[in-house]
Amino acid sequence: VNLVPVILCGGAGTRLWPVSRQAMPKPFMLLPNGRTLLADTLCRAADLPGVERLCVVTNTDYRYLVEDQLHACGLARERIHLLLEDEGRNTAPAILMASLLLEQRAGKNTIALVLPADHIIRSRDDFSAAVGKAQRLAQKNYLCTFGVVPNFAETGYGYIESGDALHGEGFVVRRFVEKPDRKTAEEYVSSGRYLWNSGMFCFQVEDMLASFRDLAPELWKQGKACWVQASGQANAGQDVQLSGAALSALQSISIDYAIFEKSPMVAVVRGTFDWSDIGSWNAVSDLYPCDGARNTTAQRTMFVNSSNTFVHSSRLVATVGVDDLLIVDTPDALLVAHKTAAQDIKQVVSQLKSSDDPTHKWHTTVDRPWGNYTVLHEEPGFKVKKIEVKPGASLSLQYHHHRSEHWVVINGTATVTNGDQLLTLEKGQSTFIPAGARHCLANQTGEALAIVETQCGDYLGEDDIVRLNDRYGRS
Amino acid sequence: VNLVPVILCGGAGTRLWPVSRQAMPKPFMLLPNGRTLLADTLCRAADLPGVERLCVVTNTDYRYLVEDQLHACGLARERIHLLLEDEGRNTAPAILMASLLLEQRAGKNTIALVLPADHIIRSRDDFSAAVGKAQRLAQKNYLCTFGVVPNFAETGYGYIESGDALHGEGFVVRRFVEKPDRKTAEEYVSSGRYLWNSGMFCFQVEDMLASFRDLAPELWKQGKACWVQASGQANAGQDVQLSGAALSALQSISIDYAIFEKSPMVAVVRGTFDWSDIGSWNAVSDLYPCDGARNTTAQRTMFVNSSNTFVHSSRLVATVGVDDLLIVDTPDALLVAHKTAAQDIKQVVSQLKSSDDPTHKWHTTVDRPWGNYTVLHEEPGFKVKKIEVKPGASLSLQYHHHRSEHWVVINGTATVTNGDQLLTLEKGQSTFIPAGARHCLANQTGEALAIVETQCGDYLGEDDIVRLNDRYGRS
Repeated sequence: VNLVPVILCGGAGTRLWPVSRQAMPKPFMLLPNGRTLLADTLCRAADLPGVERLCVVTNTDYRYLVEDQLHACGLARERIHLLLEDEGRNTAPAILMASLLLEQRAGKNTIALVLPADHIIRSRDDFSAAVGKAQRLAQKNYLCTFGVVPNFAETGYGYIESGDALHGEGFVVRRFVEKPDRKTAEEYVSSGRYLWNSGMFCFQVEDMLASFRDLAPELWKQGKACWVQASGQANAGQDVQLSGAALSALQSISIDYAIFEKSPMVAVVRGTFDWSDIGSWNAVSDLYPCDGARNTTAQRTMFVNSSNTFVHSSRLVATVGVDDLLIVDTPDALLVAHKTAAQDIKQVVSQLKSSDDPTHKWHTTVDRPWGNYTVLHEEPGFKVKKIEVKPGASLSLQYHHHRSEHWVVINGTATVTNGDQLLTLEKGQSTFIPAGARHCLANQTGEALAIVETQCGDYLGEDDIVRLNDRYGRS
Repeated sequence: VNLVPVILCGGAGTRLWPVSRQAMPKPFMLLPNGRTLLADTLCRAADLPGVERLCVVTNTDYRYLVEDQLHACGLARERIHLLLEDEGRNTAPAILMASLLLEQRAGKNTIALVLPADHIIRSRDDFSAAVGKAQRLAQKNYLCTFGVVPNFAETGYGYIESGDALHGEGFVVRRFVEKPDRKTAEEYVSSGRYLWNSGMFCFQVEDMLASFRDLAPELWKQGKACWVQASGQANAGQDVQLSGAALSALQSISIDYAIFEKSPMVAVVRGTFDWSDIGSWNAVSDLYPCDGARNTTAQRTMFVNSSNTFVHSSRLVATVGVDDLLIVDTPDALLVAHKTAAQDIKQVVSQLKSSDDPTHKWHTTVDRPWGNYTVLHEEPGFKVKKIEVKPGASLSLQYHHHRSEHWVVINGTATVTNGDQLLTLEKGQSTFIPAGARHCLANQTGEALAIVETQCGDYLGEDDIVRLNDRYGRS
């Protein structure tokens, strides 16, 4: 059997602001184990029996972040089909495009296992067993969903009502139901028939394509056109880039609405594994061990007369006489929310977005194809940055109109172009780049390189940059 | 009349952590008007009729901080008698030593007006009128207290029970009472006889000295000995430094216990002015205008479904669904406390102190005689600091064993000794100081100087410094 996990790595995760932001959203958040949600998902998927290659669908902006996570998991780049969207179009178009890719590259009988990149599943064996069941149903032409056996009356999830058993592997789906109110959710849980709709799916590629053709003919037509255009530009085995009018034309609709709620061949596999979609800070809070007063933190926190409070911070935090709070601290933004208001955090993000505040999108650390930079301090007239360059990577050859820069190497060895000079700078060595001078910073070693950059000038915006030559196509 | 305000500038203000810390305590906290509590007190005192000179009693550690505040108030240095204690010994010894100083330098008939440096008084005219009454009573040999007419049943203050009128200026003191419980406090307020004990005093120097001699003879003897030793080392008009065994021998006791509760010549002047001892973050919160939901902040805060919450921060803070919180944010420590638990914040400080955590004492910005430095970032192997040097000031000639330093001038003009070189560096210029090289940073201009320093080395502690020459006597 050819099983290909399709990992959907999108979604804003605005309820997890200020850690999840547009430039580095929820799938890239670190778990208590020090890994990202995406890395966790990639490893879980790659370890399944029969998996040779994986497909990742993500936004073009996250290409290098995804590659970092592949590297972190030790997954060879050539095992990955990367499907890049210039804009997110919801799950139905993503799954359609992934199915078209798999039909072409892996064959129409390939079994696809769709997994959101930002869920947590603790019991690997149970998960693997459920995937096995779904796979066997998919081979019998079912479109499978995974329904998690609920252990409390969650009102934030959709539910699946299951019916008769199917081939000893799963169950008939009676209906999908939207997020219920508390009373209804309690009835669902006690009934034993209702399962949480986990957003994971398993199907044979040709069955899914036939379903699109029959049940969503307009999207099917648009998707085929988009695919023909995109795949025509990519060679076999290369990443596929979806962009432009063909992508924008795709109807933004979920796979549940487009296919699963309409198809007569839908089955549900009961998942008995410990599952969470990490939908709020409350769910993150539950990942940490708690003290006797149910407080959770991964850091240096002093809880004084406080209970049921979660703290995420890299600084010293002291809480005094508080209960039921979520305290989430980042270098440039702090959130203090009541646990019962965890869903309202997305209001903060939409307000920040509408006032064009950068903290809805950017962190003080900004990832770049070549590594990252962190703004350590900024005042009128000067800015201090730490810049990390990956082994073998290089910033563009560039110059600035309005600022001079001082570079001090604090780790590794830098290869520096400064005007007409080519310099090799070791730890503790430095160079000065006047405004207008062409310069380039490169790491030609196999080790990490880090510098501290002090910028001086009357204008210090990131847009004061003229790129003369850039290996990432940005010049 | 010769009226000399005696400003007591001590006290830890631990309930105002993390802004108030041992190295920069409550009197140096900024008010909403951008001035410190000490500057506010100095100006209020200097503006009183008949005031030529002032006496400030403070810890030796705060000498340069006090001088900065004198400068900020435009008070000429020669108007100030500075009494420096190497360790705080409570109010009775401080007032005794100040009285001995004033006896010698201003005469025994001088009227002393003792004012804590960290109170707020809004109505200057009412305050001035009360001081006038106290002054006239002091001339009649009374030791005067100021009793503030209470406007609510505060349980955090001591009270003074007033009796019959005295000379139309004040009242007889029936008794001093400790902090009452709520019910008692309410009775006090409704009685009309009870006043808040403000901790401000007014007396003729010779009356206070006689009171010490008669009512606290042991302290009187110790104080005289301490004074003889300290004043013998100081020339007339110079600062007086109290230190060593003579200072440590002084009984640590409040002036209330030592004198006022025992003297038959105590009077109280009713203060109708708006007064606060800024004893907690609740009191600070009240200094700011509030929004419709009684939230207060001086900064960029998004209050979402929140009420009666105070935010002090230089970053973006968002609160969601919270009530009655104090959120106080500094670069290296964050406090989140319930308003009803404001008094328990001192527990945090004592825990930090016992675990030797630097945040009980130091800020990321550290004041020095020559200016200040701020640690912008620190990691193993490197540290980035911003260093500000006052006009005319200079750091010591020094070297380090374990670290190199890069200096970039970001504001003003630096005069730099680097090994054998003497350099003048303008904004944007830089120099590199290898480990072991003698160096000195000076500001020989009348304008502010600021540099960014990047330190590299395996050991970056502040104690890796060899001072060869220091104008502040630290070599």
